[in-house]
Amino acid sequence: MIIILKSGATDDQIEHVIERVEALGLRAHLSRGTFRTVIGVIGDEVKVQAEPLRAIAGVAEVVPVLPPYKLASLEAHPAPSVVDVSGVHIGGGQLALIAGPCAVEDSDRMLAIARRVRASGANILRGGAFKPRTSPYAFQGLGEEGLRILRDAGQAVGMPVVTEVTDPRDVDRVAFHADMLQVGARNMQNFVLLTEVGRTQKPVLLKRGMSATVTDLLMSAEYILSQGNPRVVLCERGVRGFDTVTRNLLDLASVAVVKRLSHLPIIVDPSHATGRPDIIPDCALAGIAVGADGVHVEVHDCPECAKSDGPQALLPDAFDTLADRIRQLAALFGRSVAKAPWANV
Amino acid sequence: MIIILKSGATDDQIEHVIERVEALGLRAHLSRGTFRTVIGVIGDEVKVQAEPLRAIAGVAEVVPVLPPYKLASLEAHPAPSVVDVSGVHIGGGQLALIAGPCAVEDSDRMLAIARRVRASGANILRGGAFKPRTSPYAFQGLGEEGLRILRDAGQAVGMPVVTEVTDPRDVDRVAFHADMLQVGARNMQNFVLLTEVGRTQKPVLLKRGMSATVTDLLMSAEYILSQGNPRVVLCERGVRGFDTVTRNLLDLASVAVVKRLSHLPIIVDPSHATGRPDIIPDCALAGIAVGADGVHVEVHDCPECAKSDGPQALLPDAFDTLADRIRQLAALFGRSVAKAPWANV
Amino acid sequence: MIIILKSGATDDQIEHVIERVEALGLRAHLSRGTFRTVIGVIGDEVKVQAEPLRAIAGVAEVVPVLPPYKLASLEAHPAPSVVDVSGVHIGGGQLALIAGPCAVEDSDRMLAIARRVRASGANILRGGAFKPRTSPYAFQGLGEEGLRILRDAGQAVGMPVVTEVTDPRDVDRVAFHADMLQVGARNMQNFVLLTEVGRTQKPVLLKRGMSATVTDLLMSAEYILSQGNPRVVLCERGVRGFDTVTRNLLDLASVAVVKRLSHLPIIVDPSHATGRPDIIPDCALAGIAVGADGVHVEVHDCPECAKSDGPQALLPDAFDTLADRIRQLAALFGRSVAKAPWANV
Amino acid sequence: MIIILKSGATDDQIEHVIERVEALGLRAHLSRGTFRTVIGVIGDEVKVQAEPLRAIAGVAEVVPVLPPYKLASLEAHPAPSVVDVSGVHIGGGQLALIAGPCAVEDSDRMLAIARRVRASGANILRGGAFKPRTSPYAFQGLGEEGLRILRDAGQAVGMPVVTEVTDPRDVDRVAFHADMLQVGARNMQNFVLLTEVGRTQKPVLLKRGMSATVTDLLMSAEYILSQGNPRVVLCERGVRGFDTVTRNLLDLASVAVVKRLSHLPIIVDPSHATGRPDIIPDCALAGIAVGADGVHVEVHDCPECAKSDGPQALLPDAFDTLADRIRQLAALFGRSVAKAPWANV
Repeated sequence: MIIILKSGATDDQIEHVIERVEALGLRAHLSRGTFRTVIGVIGDEVKVQAEPLRAIAGVAEVVPVLPPYKLASLEAHPAPSVVDVSGVHIGGGQLALIAGPCAVEDSDRMLAIARRVRASGANILRGGAFKPRTSPYAFQGLGEEGLRILRDAGQAVGMPVVTEVTDPRDVDRVAFHADMLQVGARNMQNFVLLTEVGRTQKPVLLKRGMSATVTDLLMSAEYILSQGNPRVVLCERGVRGFDTVTRNLLDLASVAVVKRLSHLPIIVDPSHATGRPDIIPDCALAGIAVGADGVHVEVHDCPECAKSDGPQALLPDAFDTLADRIRQLAALFGRSVAKAPWANV
Repeated sequence: MIIILKSGATDDQIEHVIERVEALGLRAHLSRGTFRTVIGVIGDEVKVQAEPLRAIAGVAEVVPVLPPYKLASLEAHPAPSVVDVSGVHIGGGQLALIAGPCAVEDSDRMLAIARRVRASGANILRGGAFKPRTSPYAFQGLGEEGLRILRDAGQAVGMPVVTEVTDPRDVDRVAFHADMLQVGARNMQNFVLLTEVGRTQKPVLLKRGMSATVTDLLMSAEYILSQGNPRVVLCERGVRGFDTVTRNLLDLASVAVVKRLSHLPIIVDPSHATGRPDIIPDCALAGIAVGADGVHVEVHDCPECAKSDGPQALLPDAFDTLADRIRQLAALFGRSVAKAPWANV
Repeated sequence: MIIILKSGATDDQIEHVIERVEALGLRAHLSRGTFRTVIGVIGDEVKVQAEPLRAIAGVAEVVPVLPPYKLASLEAHPAPSVVDVSGVHIGGGQLALIAGPCAVEDSDRMLAIARRVRASGANILRGGAFKPRTSPYAFQGLGEEGLRILRDAGQAVGMPVVTEVTDPRDVDRVAFHADMLQVGARNMQNFVLLTEVGRTQKPVLLKRGMSATVTDLLMSAEYILSQGNPRVVLCERGVRGFDTVTRNLLDLASVAVVKRLSHLPIIVDPSHATGRPDIIPDCALAGIAVGADGVHVEVHDCPECAKSDGPQALLPDAFDTLADRIRQLAALFGRSVAKAPWANV
Repeated sequence: MIIILKSGATDDQIEHVIERVEALGLRAHLSRGTFRTVIGVIGDEVKVQAEPLRAIAGVAEVVPVLPPYKLASLEAHPAPSVVDVSGVHIGGGQLALIAGPCAVEDSDRMLAIARRVRASGANILRGGAFKPRTSPYAFQGLGEEGLRILRDAGQAVGMPVVTEVTDPRDVDRVAFHADMLQVGARNMQNFVLLTEVGRTQKPVLLKRGMSATVTDLLMSAEYILSQGNPRVVLCERGVRGFDTVTRNLLDLASVAVVKRLSHLPIIVDPSHATGRPDIIPDCALAGIAVGADGVHVEVHDCPECAKSDGPQALLPDAFDTLADRIRQLAALFGRSVAKAPWANV
């Protein structure tokens, strides 16, 4: 950590900063420049990153040198983590291909879609039972019944399932039915929920919030990891942008950045990022090319009758073509789509 | 609602759209232009805003004509709402002046700060007991003990108190101690929490999320209102911006926009918006000038030893000067800072 | 300047960085921390801010300590600059009140609007003769004829005039007719144009670009100042935001920040920032409250027939009310609207 | 175009809107809904998109149905355009691979880099002679000497050259030396410059501005096209984002969107978008995967001694590896990197 002092900082102020640093158990290294004095803080700065050193009189700025996350960092764990979702391995060259409808609607439809995406090569089935909707008047999901329908469909076709959990009181219940817990973008900094999913040993799909930096995302992962659950898969799903031609702004470069900072797998969700089925396949392929450990795509057999986010769903045929191209592209990069683990009944 | 069709939309597709609209209990009004056909939807469009009409083949775009919120809208309630926080009235020309430390730290400090801000004219005391921190290693608040310390300080100096609730399981507990429940920016779309605070009759201070549009903010208010709790005060506290000279980007124009769309009071929080004590007073005054129903400012008597967000705290003297200017400015606009309701013991 | 090395930086790499720094005529001060080595650069860092030190092997990051602008900085010129626009003084407590139509349309209308805004207390008349339009099919302005009409209207009513220059070849011509040259937001980083206006001694109204940071804005001012023209007035007019309820996102906190970094006057343009006449007055007042040295407002007597940006124009009556409130507000802050300098013929 | 009226719009106001529409030579189609009245405008709306209809009393909103560009639209020209840059064809399955240093520095270095990138398969050589720099104190380019050095290097190795033009007075001079004119991001809405390059018949590389929407970008292309120059290649190079881990935010989905709106080729510049050589190759590959017609990459043989943007330059070896992977990836998509047209002397 480097503390930059204001141009008019007095000797007393400088002395006081040094005392504060030393009182925190670190050493201060003073460097008087021509125009500014700076103090290098020597020791484990993560301990003191939350200290309000910038509030000390005479301090202009505090520049961290180390990232604020530890467990999520590549330095703590230099090899890529591989997360096992009931037999589907994500990371280290194996790709997740997560597909399914936005919301679980009924068992027939769920099963029909599950069969289609399984046949196309998807390895994890998705479907929402608890839907965080911006409108209180919109369909909020089937709740526990939805969890059962999803699980049954997954078992029927031989795929693990992932579903969103939005309430800390529901974590055990959702974990009972699902193979992977999704924390949605709007809850990425719901620290209460992160703590609860961190207390399970279920794999977690952690989606990046719309205004979250890469550091914010990794700090949210750190919440889960620090509770003892190492099974975190990150997901880039678009940040807020100023152009309304897409629903959000897919930040694919962030995937490449995460790979240089963290060992955690990261996948891409072009469905929520763009909201446009016409470009979802191209963006999914770009996600694989940039280095993502998989994609997450919403698929529905009747988008115009879907109860949630129909306009962004791919039709099963379009997904089938996409899955085929993903496999070709993955092969070019020496990676492969993990197989769905169980027999397709 | 207006449905714009693609240039090559077929008659069958147009017919199908009309059937769907009519099946939803509304009427369709066809208008064939030179280059595009559009269909006007006649009836209560709020019922169908969640329908995936954009997913229908041949549809290019769906343009809503009505806002998606009802209870929060000015049309539903043309007069400004006044929210009563244990005797402090917010809205309709009366201003909230909410002040206090970021986090409750101990009872002596809490009481000392409470006395200072009360003496300066603050009418509601703030202090966090459950702190949502980006780092799992940072101080997370004193929890229930913090609630009691805050309440006791408020009663000692004669001020109602507001504090953040982050866990739906804590709502009753926090509501027992506090006069007003704060839902923080990171939880603005934590719909589970919104629903729980909506089930109480406590006033709610709802902060705008960093990537939330004004519509998103009003939809989150609608969650609370639709549960039967009409006591919602909105708070603009800065959105994500690209310039790091301030912590966030204070969107004061949004306050003026909210006034044209909703009856709900809205205040401004320049502390979180800017993170810079040197400009917080100027931004607070600008908030009053743009039409806000009050300000929310963090005050600490020793910012450099604060356990949370010290670098953005105003010193009590600076707050005293600010409060004085706010009163003068309010008077110029025919408004006034509400008095703290209880005797200052 | 501080150079932060990568965790695995070798001694040879560190040595090489030190050599590079010394070869540039500065001194290097090495500080080996527990986890990272940092090198403080001692001397006039502005000389070396453009050097590609971050490209050196082993370097993780380069953190500037000084701002990259000199002439625009408060350190170079601690007292606020006052810019004289043909007798109207902007800065140091005197406010600009710039008003007029977006585009000069014809001499009758120009004169009529000029009379109205002069009567309301505006002190500088605006009107565009060269209009930068996003569409090549939109009205592009009257060109030189427009300049003459504007100047004649200004002289008729006793007001200096400001108008935009978009082409470096036009600078002399525009400077001949106008009292102040406007560089628009889209040209804020048109360095060729900045250099040309810097070669004149005409006051320049430099508008902030939609994606410009405060530093970017001050660097563009530095271009003008470094050519020998000290008469720069900055203008905040909204940056790109994600919410379409306003045209742009008015960044009023940036005004307060500029005041802490630079001696240059800065005004606010709520017309372009919001595009909404219903909130322009409130935003203008907020601009004064936050510390701006004036406002820039578009006024038209028939918005629905305006040739450019009609939907964001204030009617003369609305402007009259606003001007009155600005005067009251300014008085509260010990400031005042400068008088238009010449007799109103 | 659809005109949405306010809820309280009077019959007189509605009548007036209809009269205005008809006076503009179009027909109005009235549709009275339950809560709002809307007027469909029938005829060639592009004629009236610049009309201030939203300023008419009683009008709430004006929704365009057609895009504001014509020549750039896919409807005007359904087949993809192929732009011929002195023998290198860009578009229609043929990829540009533009490489070279940020700035032309001297003829030896220019030639050395040119040989390297030519050997790796680049087909167009880049190098800046007129550099738009944010600081007036930074290296501004060699000017005309730089143009000659670049052209000579291109001829020596058998590659057409592209270089930026920043001053409308320089367009002829730059066009004399270069095979392709670059309009930089900061000049994307420098309409004077766009008009000048539109008057030549030289291919233009038009970079997207940092706060430009896709529509803004296509409107800037329209400026060039409408002057009679059809040879426009677009370039996505990152927009302003809130996360400082990358220099800008690469918006790859916009490439896919442009493909659905326009016939113009579009390439990707990961160098300026990210500023990070460690992720530039991954982002370049993602650009190809998303459908771009090529990439633009800065290459330097000594980044740490480069006079401009060294920290974002790829080393020639890294570029060589990248070029190889681009060819493989292109082949998978049935596309190919166009050959440099001339013999490598």
